[in-house]
Amino acid sequence: MREPGTARIAVDLLGGDQAPAVVVDGALRACQADPALQLLLVGPVEAADAVLAALGPADRGRVCAVAAPTGPHAQDRDVSSVESGVRSAVLAVAQGLADAVVSAGNTGATVTSAALGLGRWPGVRRPALTAVLPTAAGRIVLLDVGSSVDPDETTLAMHARLGAAYASVVHGVAAPRVGLLTIGTERGKGDRLRRAVPAVLAALDLPAGGSYAGLVEGNDVVTGAPADVVVADGFTGNVLLKGLETAYALLGAPNPGEVPPRAAVLLGVGGTVVVCHGAASGADIAAGIGFAAALHRRAAVPAIADLIIGPEAPATDRKTPDPQSARGGS
Amino acid sequence: MREPGTARIAVDLLGGDQAPAVVVDGALRACQADPALQLLLVGPVEAADAVLAALGPADRGRVCAVAAPTGPHAQDRDVSSVESGVRSAVLAVAQGLADAVVSAGNTGATVTSAALGLGRWPGVRRPALTAVLPTAAGRIVLLDVGSSVDPDETTLAMHARLGAAYASVVHGVAAPRVGLLTIGTERGKGDRLRRAVPAVLAALDLPAGGSYAGLVEGNDVVTGAPADVVVADGFTGNVLLKGLETAYALLGAPNPGEVPPRAAVLLGVGGTVVVCHGAASGADIAAGIGFAAALHRRAAVPAIADLIIGPEAPATDRKTPDPQSARGGS
Repeated sequence: MREPGTARIAVDLLGGDQAPAVVVDGALRACQADPALQLLLVGPVEAADAVLAALGPADRGRVCAVAAPTGPHAQDRDVSSVESGVRSAVLAVAQGLADAVVSAGNTGATVTSAALGLGRWPGVRRPALTAVLPTAAGRIVLLDVGSSVDPDETTLAMHARLGAAYASVVHGVAAPRVGLLTIGTERGKGDRLRRAVPAVLAALDLPAGGSYAGLVEGNDVVTGAPADVVVADGFTGNVLLKGLETAYALLGAPNPGEVPPRAAVLLGVGGTVVVCHGAASGADIAAGIGFAAALHRRAAVPAIADLIIGPEAPATDRKTPDPQSARGGS
Repeated sequence: MREPGTARIAVDLLGGDQAPAVVVDGALRACQADPALQLLLVGPVEAADAVLAALGPADRGRVCAVAAPTGPHAQDRDVSSVESGVRSAVLAVAQGLADAVVSAGNTGATVTSAALGLGRWPGVRRPALTAVLPTAAGRIVLLDVGSSVDPDETTLAMHARLGAAYASVVHGVAAPRVGLLTIGTERGKGDRLRRAVPAVLAALDLPAGGSYAGLVEGNDVVTGAPADVVVADGFTGNVLLKGLETAYALLGAPNPGEVPPRAAVLLGVGGTVVVCHGAASGADIAAGIGFAAALHRRAAVPAIADLIIGPEAPATDRKTPDPQSARGGS
């Protein structure tokens, strides 16, 4: 029987440019900051041991190590052993051993592992990596930031729905406004995709009373004025996110009251999956773990699933013995 | 006979969201700031008259109005009359009546007018809209920022050469480092274009002793650490530019000593063409005019052409009676 408020987070020790050292640092910080956190550390046993050794005896019971294949040094890791970290972490969620996954590893590998291990929601071809940025007017949801590099209209439309649901469930926005990121608001600007998608978005039934707010540009993601949610292809979204996050880290956020974690959540799979930057610091990893715990505690992903696929719909596009678990519930 | 240091700038009064009012304001500010500036105001005569009326008698001789078809109100302007402003301004340069063009109008129309009116340099399929951003490490050249939304490898390779030449000629960078903007530096990241282009750029003979510096990400455009020039498709470049410029306007530049104009120069055509944002303020327009004058005074565009096509090569891909003029000389 778990305590109320407990969050069990599976952490991929092998993900990230500086893994496992930075992930070990982040896991420690997260553990010390949140006494109701339990960590499942997936990766080299010696790295997990470093976390355990740094914790007091009373806290060691909250950390559990799960071995995953690895070479002795980060430089020697080959792709398959690195990816086995996130695969094992995702499986821990699929098997009910953890409530959420956090990885700073390769985004493509995380998306694939999550889609295979947790299933995708019906209608979701490509899950959306969803980030939150501070703006002069509050917070803005930006998606996708790296999962889909060449999306089609159907994928952008689903991402618009996922973003609206996220803004409603996590940010409490009533009737979220969803904009499409492009390079000019005059008719005929943008590429073929951006010229075709507005009609699709305008005709869409967005969840939570959301509505299509029209075309937005890079500057609008900073001011936050015209939209609560901005839909982008994953290439453009990733470049803009990394640019603005770095600018805000250097210069301060445009809204000091609103500093979201530098981590993104993957929407459209049957569980809570949080992705940190490959270049994440220990503090970033800790914030990502805290973000995953917060999403789990407010049952955000199942609530978003309810808005997207309805509470009665089948949970995912794969056979699963436990629909509630596969929806991302716990 | 013109005075040394004189710069004759053709200004498109009809370009921009708030045209002609904001352009009139910008033209006035530019005129007052620079006594060696001469303006050719292309557009509605009453707008040009507003500039003349605000200038003292001694300065009125520096401003000349050229009528272009227009409706009585900005709201009534149809695309063809709006575009006639930039077309006429470009023709003034082609005919030797002005040294450079400044427009805040539709980028596509400006690029098309410039390519038709001034000719493209050999090998330039799509001219590159070239912007400069302040970074923590100095200045960075970002191109393209809106001319090419679906570029191919050949276009990105030419833009890499144009960017290296610009960094050398305008910023005085010896052996400029040219990076390719993408979403991750691991092998296999990015879209098809970004996976194919690195081999092309690595094999390229970049001007001014430039070299290919590899893949860069959104954060690198803020820190400026790994590159002097960043090559992007025009869609991503435009979104990132507008995001970062707006962040810096709100929060201050990452390097207070380096605040480039919020304007871009079109490289690869036979003249000096500066593009301001559609949402430019009067101060932005004035800065754009000042930027055009500075580029002309240092003969930057002809010097870049020398590096790209060589001093002996034919100037453009069209027939032209005056090669020196069509190279952007004056």
